[in-house]
Amino acid sequence: MNWKFSERAKKAKASEIRELLKVSGAEGWISFAGGYPDPKLIPKEKMAEIAEDVILNLGKDALQYGPTEGILPLRETILQMEKESGVKGLEIDNIIITTGSQQGLELLAKIFINKGEKVIVEAPSYLGALQAFSFFEANFVSVPLDEKGIKTEILREKLKENKEAKFIYLVPTFHNPAGVTLSLERRKEVIELAEEYQIPVIEDDPYSKIRFEGEDLPSLLSMDGAKNVIKLGTFSKIISGGFRLGWVVGDKEVIRKAVLAKQSSDLCSPNLTQYLANEFIKRGLMKEYLEVVKREYKKKRDAMLSGLERYCSQKAEWTKPEGGLFVWVKTNADTDKLFEKAKEKKIAYVPGSAFYPYREDKNHMRLNFSLPTCQEIEEGTKRLGEILAVA
Amino acid sequence: MNWKFSERAKKAKASEIRELLKVSGAEGWISFAGGYPDPKLIPKEKMAEIAEDVILNLGKDALQYGPTEGILPLRETILQMEKESGVKGLEIDNIIITTGSQQGLELLAKIFINKGEKVIVEAPSYLGALQAFSFFEANFVSVPLDEKGIKTEILREKLKENKEAKFIYLVPTFHNPAGVTLSLERRKEVIELAEEYQIPVIEDDPYSKIRFEGEDLPSLLSMDGAKNVIKLGTFSKIISGGFRLGWVVGDKEVIRKAVLAKQSSDLCSPNLTQYLANEFIKRGLMKEYLEVVKREYKKKRDAMLSGLERYCSQKAEWTKPEGGLFVWVKTNADTDKLFEKAKEKKIAYVPGSAFYPYREDKNHMRLNFSLPTCQEIEEGTKRLGEILAVA
Repeated sequence: MNWKFSERAKKAKASEIRELLKVSGAEGWISFAGGYPDPKLIPKEKMAEIAEDVILNLGKDALQYGPTEGILPLRETILQMEKESGVKGLEIDNIIITTGSQQGLELLAKIFINKGEKVIVEAPSYLGALQAFSFFEANFVSVPLDEKGIKTEILREKLKENKEAKFIYLVPTFHNPAGVTLSLERRKEVIELAEEYQIPVIEDDPYSKIRFEGEDLPSLLSMDGAKNVIKLGTFSKIISGGFRLGWVVGDKEVIRKAVLAKQSSDLCSPNLTQYLANEFIKRGLMKEYLEVVKREYKKKRDAMLSGLERYCSQKAEWTKPEGGLFVWVKTNADTDKLFEKAKEKKIAYVPGSAFYPYREDKNHMRLNFSLPTCQEIEEGTKRLGEILAVA
Repeated sequence: MNWKFSERAKKAKASEIRELLKVSGAEGWISFAGGYPDPKLIPKEKMAEIAEDVILNLGKDALQYGPTEGILPLRETILQMEKESGVKGLEIDNIIITTGSQQGLELLAKIFINKGEKVIVEAPSYLGALQAFSFFEANFVSVPLDEKGIKTEILREKLKENKEAKFIYLVPTFHNPAGVTLSLERRKEVIELAEEYQIPVIEDDPYSKIRFEGEDLPSLLSMDGAKNVIKLGTFSKIISGGFRLGWVVGDKEVIRKAVLAKQSSDLCSPNLTQYLANEFIKRGLMKEYLEVVKREYKKKRDAMLSGLERYCSQKAEWTKPEGGLFVWVKTNADTDKLFEKAKEKKIAYVPGSAFYPYREDKNHMRLNFSLPTCQEIEEGTKRLGEILAVA
């Protein structure tokens, strides 16, 4: 058969990150390439207990199809969490549960983007979002960021030039890949710009609960009162990536459209993992788990920052994240090409170009510190130093 | 905010089935509207045991993100299942695991359909497929079916007139909604037509393992050797709908594109439920469960057929499915309008028009027999008879 694929499928290319992850799982490698939580920290015994309880006592529902919006108890729990973090005026119909927050991105792409329409993204930006928007044939307008997040003066210019843009997509807190956090002042400016230009903001927030130090900042959603801001959350980093559960909070009209889009995408997210997540939270285990995660990831971040200082400071500079999973390293080398050398040393990172819609930057690399051990981080930064030294 | 949704989102309407399901769950109602398996039949104790084992012993992987293609052990199990059912020449890269087979439909829509392109469907056709294809702005060419499945002589004509159609979508075995099964002779014709016109066939097969009587027929996939046929399978009816697990088997090029599309849709399906499903099968529990399901659904089907005979034979005729979950009833009434009367009697069905892309038929209703009890089926068909009598 001579397969006649759609235009969007013809353009889609294999993600080098996925390929990277395959390579870098092999013997002897140290990988800073993934974005995975550390599975050793999950309280397996307690999770097993919950699974047994849920299947025996709630099996009639937990093993059945569920509502497209998500099961009511978990939506109520999420509503409560959002209220506690300062979002006012929310009701249950402001929330849909999604199959990971990747599906949240997909649903928003599906309901907003016509072929060729523009979306505004940070440069760099989360790769999974770029992929989701690309699949709906978006055009990208990118706005650079610095250690205080997206540069709002440039965002303003771009908005002026692109009034028809469908939305602004941001990871304001512990940015992926850059590790930086949008300052309070700039948060206010973003909210004002959204109102002024009547362009929605998608706030992707997988990491804000994983803060090691410094003060919590209000979410864009809470500052705007869920008017122009649509927020994505996920349980992947705060309970389990194997559950495939995230959520979208936003205006009811948006959520209603997202529900329709989700019906045709996968009918509903897994009821079983929804009930498990809800029990995990209700029993206070998410709070306990988060304390462990923050403590351990802080150690790993510290190990990474001091390893970089020790081995790479002649050849690179990097961000100092107060939370999240990533450090963003700037070098003088072409990190796409450098990867050949990295292979020899069996050290994996993600080349920065992957995070730019048109691959317009070649000098960065994203390093993950949540999955490797502190020893591996020490050894890995040493290997990085060695390849950077000869780059 | 004046939300500027995409064209596809503007066109999307709430599914009346979903609305129906909400109504018909209330006190005093009998519902033939859903398509849910009977949750009482699932061996909960054994499932709880498996969940405990999987989380304690495989938690490192089961609670983590996984490969977009699905976890290798489950793909191998599916490969084995497909081989046992007579499909030759398959390898692991012919298989992707999806978040329910609804996602299989979505991925195929995504990789094949450009806006406005044609797809060939049965009339009636599975509602979820129509929704998935609609969201990618397909145009529909429909071909009627009878008790032997799609009318191949009309399919041939439609292919002649629509050589540019992207695929033919069929539910050949225990059709949803019609309950009929494509005859062996017509299966051969479909395979020949696909080859002659070089148009792929999507074989949606959620029900073939739920056969109460009669002889198994070969899948289109096995007859064609995975050349022009892409098959969708699901665990929703043979293990649990709450797992959200299905799969697609087809040419490696198609699967490769589907993997790329899935990356942007939800990264991966839930690892936890993949490991659970695999263990459930490996321990021989799926086979046991299927025996129970077939025995119990047969009783329910018999109850429905005899109830219809007793109460509705003056006003309707219906299909006699040898398996699956549905009976398709033809009446002289407008079943959209009749639903108002059904509400008074608290009996729910799905009006047939929902299963036609342009709602071009108004005289049918779909009845589900897997979820209600035999008593409910008896009482429900009686209520149906009463509303039909005055229609």
